[in-house]
Amino acid sequence: MSDEDTASILIIGGGGVGTIVALNLECGRRAKVTLVLRSNFDRVSQDGFSIRSVDHGNLTGWQPHKVVKKVPAIVNGTSAFDFVVCCTKNIPDFGPSIGDIVQPAVTLGQTTIVLIQNGLNIELPLVEQFPQNTILSGVSFMGSHELEAGVIEHDFEDKLVVGAFQNVSVDAELSSAQARDFVARYSAGGKTVCEYAVDANRSRWEKLVYNATMNPICAVLRTDTATLRLSNSIENLVRPAMEEIRAAASANGYNLDAFIAQRMIDMDPMEIFFKPSMCMDALKGNLIEFENLVGEPLRAGKKHGVAMPVLTVIYDMCKMLQWQLKATREGRSQEDMLKVYHSSKP
Amino acid sequence: MSDEDTASILIIGGGGVGTIVALNLECGRRAKVTLVLRSNFDRVSQDGFSIRSVDHGNLTGWQPHKVVKKVPAIVNGTSAFDFVVCCTKNIPDFGPSIGDIVQPAVTLGQTTIVLIQNGLNIELPLVEQFPQNTILSGVSFMGSHELEAGVIEHDFEDKLVVGAFQNVSVDAELSSAQARDFVARYSAGGKTVCEYAVDANRSRWEKLVYNATMNPICAVLRTDTATLRLSNSIENLVRPAMEEIRAAASANGYNLDAFIAQRMIDMDPMEIFFKPSMCMDALKGNLIEFENLVGEPLRAGKKHGVAMPVLTVIYDMCKMLQWQLKATREGRSQEDMLKVYHSSKP
Repeated sequence: MSDEDTASILIIGGGGVGTIVALNLECGRRAKVTLVLRSNFDRVSQDGFSIRSVDHGNLTGWQPHKVVKKVPAIVNGTSAFDFVVCCTKNIPDFGPSIGDIVQPAVTLGQTTIVLIQNGLNIELPLVEQFPQNTILSGVSFMGSHELEAGVIEHDFEDKLVVGAFQNVSVDAELSSAQARDFVARYSAGGKTVCEYAVDANRSRWEKLVYNATMNPICAVLRTDTATLRLSNSIENLVRPAMEEIRAAASANGYNLDAFIAQRMIDMDPMEIFFKPSMCMDALKGNLIEFENLVGEPLRAGKKHGVAMPVLTVIYDMCKMLQWQLKATREGRSQEDMLKVYHSSKP
Repeated sequence: MSDEDTASILIIGGGGVGTIVALNLECGRRAKVTLVLRSNFDRVSQDGFSIRSVDHGNLTGWQPHKVVKKVPAIVNGTSAFDFVVCCTKNIPDFGPSIGDIVQPAVTLGQTTIVLIQNGLNIELPLVEQFPQNTILSGVSFMGSHELEAGVIEHDFEDKLVVGAFQNVSVDAELSSAQARDFVARYSAGGKTVCEYAVDANRSRWEKLVYNATMNPICAVLRTDTATLRLSNSIENLVRPAMEEIRAAASANGYNLDAFIAQRMIDMDPMEIFFKPSMCMDALKGNLIEFENLVGEPLRAGKKHGVAMPVLTVIYDMCKMLQWQLKATREGRSQEDMLKVYHSSKP
């Protein structure tokens, strides 16, 4: 454990977002960051990160307090960390759960878990697995990605919204105080905007207006947001999907303003022909975060009877795309796939 | 003009379908075929076609009566052809219209025009351009494609349905007699099934149950029909789209049987991981026939108030895909596209 002014923070995931979160926290001098790396560990532990940041300038050879290869296990029953921050992709339909990923470093009833990830309802499995821990929900609006191992391009300004997620067995005031504490640490450097929110779900829904629509449509069609606008695909395809999300948000108690669709449509500068995360993932052969970005808001809307015909098709197409990505990733042969198929038929 | 027993037939398009149509007509010895070739003219005029046909066996160096490079113009006001058969792709949103393609070889009020092409309402522009000519509507169920220039793989049996398309200025009995005459010539070889239909639109709608759904879904997702089945994409994505087509057909007076969706789902053998035509076209960078295969049945259904939410999304995604294919084909640069876009804004 650390003294009052310097929290010990574990960040899991040193890609585009996680690295900038680490950098910003250390900038404020109120956090000592241990960063868990996977694919870029060798590169970064040797040479550090190369970072071009719209908020922090250019850095070469930068490292946080410590980089490690795997999530450190607690020693003598107590975690070395005040906060465990998860900045990985969140793909519930593949691999270990986020709960199992953070678990080794979490002291039950003590460590605060922070999710800086996209999508809806991602806190629910954590609340279930850690009913006595504070769970903070973080919604990041930064644009940042890893160009190659250890090389980070941070091109849209960091803005982070943090709120406490309601956890029945945790005192609400304590959770809220921990959320404010994290916000204070994140804001300490003065280079970014970090806001405390009573309910971060409003920010989640706002972000979904883009992330449940533009993002998967670009992934399915292997295109970018400028091309969607150039090809007149906004009015028939994108805007109806965005309005379905707005209706679903409203049915769930979050009234988003009437102009949010237009703001999201206009958000990416045309000139960069921006391919959103799911499209980039699909093109690289990585799995896509479609369950939290499309599936959860779709289910949340349908639960309240919201008609979501466009989102439904987008979701099913993403499901198919994910199946293909998994098949390729796992190197399944056509023969094997047919064998499994025929043997599973009655 | 030819004697009674041997009609002079011009076939436009010597790809997978057109070549087998030419071969089958000549096999029956009641047609003398002139075949218009484009990309494969040099190869075929020199070496002939290499054909592997499920109906006609293997042929090397085969040529019809004559191959030509462009549609022959009429001489002294009279076409040299009794029938002008169009077997090209039909892409109304690009290039010259089918009417303009056949026009040089057509004598007004005399030549019979036969369309052996996919999709709905493809006869309408021909009726408008040639109000006094018989227009025959041909729906081919064969599977045949060109592996490379002049090399044809014909792997699903030829079945052709032919009917006269209603043309107000042409005597219905004459049209119907000409349809029957074409069917007789096509059937003369005895190697294929060719059926006369009072109304070929029923066959068009039946074929659309596959072609407006499986075909574009595979194109958008760059996949094959076996993978759609393996990935459990049938019940959520494919079948609902097929049932929308069935509802649209019904609203237009064509009741298709309740099992047609299942038959179409099961049609392609799993083992071949079949990529339908629009998917192959998209992968090759060719334009896709989405307006006649998806747009027309969609409009025909919506006209009668049929709810078609899945088809609507598929159509809009195809539209976007086509835009991309055109942009690539025309070599438009991102800079040029942005210039056009910005200059077109108010």
